[in-house]
Order: sequence, then C-alpha cells, then structure tokens
Amino acid sequence: METKEKIYRTASKLFLEQGYDNTPMSHIARELGLSKAGLYHHYPSKESLLFDIIDYLNETNFIPILKEAEKISDPEKRLIFFLRRYSEIMTMDASSRIAVHEAGKLKPHHSKIVKQNWRKTFTLIKDAMSEMQASGKAKEISSTFAAFAAIGMCSWTYYWFDYSRKESAEELSETFIEILLRGITKGKE
Amino acid sequence: METKEKIYRTASKLFLEQGYDNTPMSHIARELGLSKAGLYHHYPSKESLLFDIIDYLNETNFIPILKEAEKISDPEKRLIFFLRRYSEIMTMDASSRIAVHEAGKLKPHHSKIVKQNWRKTFTLIKDAMSEMQASGKAKEISSTFAAFAAIGMCSWTYYWFDYSRKESAEELSETFIEILLRGITKGKE
Repeated sequence: METKEKIYRTASKLFLEQGYDNTPMSHIARELGLSKAGLYHHYPSKESLLFDIIDYLNETNFIPILKEAEKISDPEKRLIFFLRRYSEIMTMDASSRIAVHEAGKLKPHHSKIVKQNWRKTFTLIKDAMSEMQASGKAKEISSTFAAFAAIGMCSWTYYWFDYSRKESAEELSETFIEILLRGITKGKE
Repeated sequence: METKEKIYRTASKLFLEQGYDNTPMSHIARELGLSKAGLYHHYPSKESLLFDIIDYLNETNFIPILKEAEKISDPEKRLIFFLRRYSEIMTMDASSRIAVHEAGKLKPHHSKIVKQNWRKTFTLIKDAMSEMQASGKAKEISSTFAAFAAIGMCSWTYYWFDYSRKESAEELSETFIEILLRGITKGKE
C-alpha cells in the first residue's frame, strides 16, 4: 500500500471513531508510526487530509456509478440503477459517514468540489423524475423535494445500519427502490 | 428569559455556526457576557449543556407530536399526522441539526435518553406500517427499512433546506407523505 493510502485509511478510521475535530495530526502520526513532520510532508494540513479522504470516497464510489447511470437512457431504469448502487455504497462500510458528517469542515475551494458531486447526484435523480413526469409515467409532484427524499433515505443509512449484518443490504436497497418508485409513479386509477 | 434558557440558546447558535467541538465554554461565556465560572455554575460541563439543548428540542418538538400521534387509532392517519409534523419541525429552523449531528458526543447516560426518543419515533412509524400490513392495506415490505426510509427523508432536510424560503415547507411535507404513503400501500391491480 502506498504511504498516502496508508495515511488516509488510518486517518479515516480515527475520524470515524472519534470525530475529525477530536483527532489531532499528532495522533494520526503516532498511529502510523510516523513523526509529525513526516505526516506533514504528505499532508500540509489536517483539512487537506480530510479532503483527500472524501475525494477518494467520491472518486471510487460515487463518480463511477454516476457515470454508469448517465449512460442509461430510460429514466426509470436509470433511477433504479442509481438508487440500488447508492444504497449499496452506504451499506458497504461506515466510511461514507465521513463524507456526509465532516464535509462542513472543508475549506471553500475543497467544499466546492465536494458540492459539485452532490449537485450531480441531485441532478441525476431530479432529471430522471422530471423525464418520467414528462412522459406521463410519474406524478406531478415536486421533483426537487422527491430527489431530496431519495437522497435522504439512502444517505441516512449510515446513522443506523448494522454493519455486522450486511446480509440485509439487498433487502434494504429493494425496499428503498420499491417505496420511491411506487411513491413517484402514477398508480392505476 | 431565564439565564439557563439564554445560555442554551446562545450555545445552540454557536454550535450550529462552528460545531460543538470547535466551541469552547470560554467562547460561550464571552458571548453571554458571563465569566467562565459563572457559566460553569449553571452547567458543570459543555456536554451537560449539549444534552440540555438536545433534550429541550426533544421535549418541545418531538415528544408532544409523538404523544399526539399515539392517540390516533387509525394507523394510516397516525403515520400521516406524524410525518407531516416531523417534516414541519425540520423546516422550522436549523436547530434540529444539533440533535442529529452532535448526538454522538453525548456521554452514555445522556445518550441513552436521546436514543430512547429515537427508538419511540422509529417504533411509532414501524408499528403503524405493520398495522397497515396486517389489515392488508400495506405491502409486505420490511417495515423496519421502510421506517428508516421515512425517518431518513425527513431528517435529511436540515442538510439542504433553505431556511430563508420557508413558504415551501408545506409542499415539502406533502411530497414526503405522498411518496411514503403511496410507496408502502398496495396499488390497485
């Protein structure tokens, strides 16, 4: 494993256990068997380390499924694909919690990059719903609020999911998809 | 306003602005025009202050609607009533963010009390869904995951809601109710 990867994996674990604000760089260095200067050689600040953790999570988890989803022309299939993969990410491990919980600690130029990813996620969901409305498949409800409802139910997972019982992950994503899809589409009259 | 109320209102504002971990007691005292000793006279620790803020939010916002909802015998009406009021609380002001975001900082004996309230919320929603399933009104999906979906979409609100545009609060709660109720009930075949 490369030194940088070792660093953010260790920092990620500590941030999860005790929170970003409560984890000084000296603690991360000690855990890695590095000197404080050695750690600062790789990361000029704790904030740059936090950004790398969140950016890595986005690049390895979110961006690939966003790109994959964007290729699907049918809006309903696109939405189902994305929600399934999004829920799966949330049940893989607790590290996504950092991306959600500590993102407010980022400096503006880093925060901007992270927000662009959130914006892409939001737009993908909202647009799929709007397309389904345009074709008469979905009801005329606010696609903005419905998109936030979808993101909310998936993202909330890290607050309560029992990561020792991952076998329930599939039932979880199918339940979310069932609720959301049935929730936005027109029922038979 | 009583001194205690002044204290937790001020602390609440500071915790929202800069986070719990980044707000020392000395800063709260300064903002209130109190000495540090004066502040410690009312609150023996910052954690006891955090607990009081969260407990106050629960006592004034959540407990009353939980109690009100529990009186409604029809499970669908109970669910709709609760979700509407729950979303409304999330759009009233950003202070609920503290109850969600900083609850992990509480000591075990305080955390236990807060978790009991979460548990009551969860149980109210889950039981209403189970009753709807028993009467054949709701689909046989996991009422546990469906309850978390409901809590997630409502609780997530504080992450994105524009508190300067409160006029959209009603449309938001109606959208959530529409998605969730349609999402869990059986459609016409």
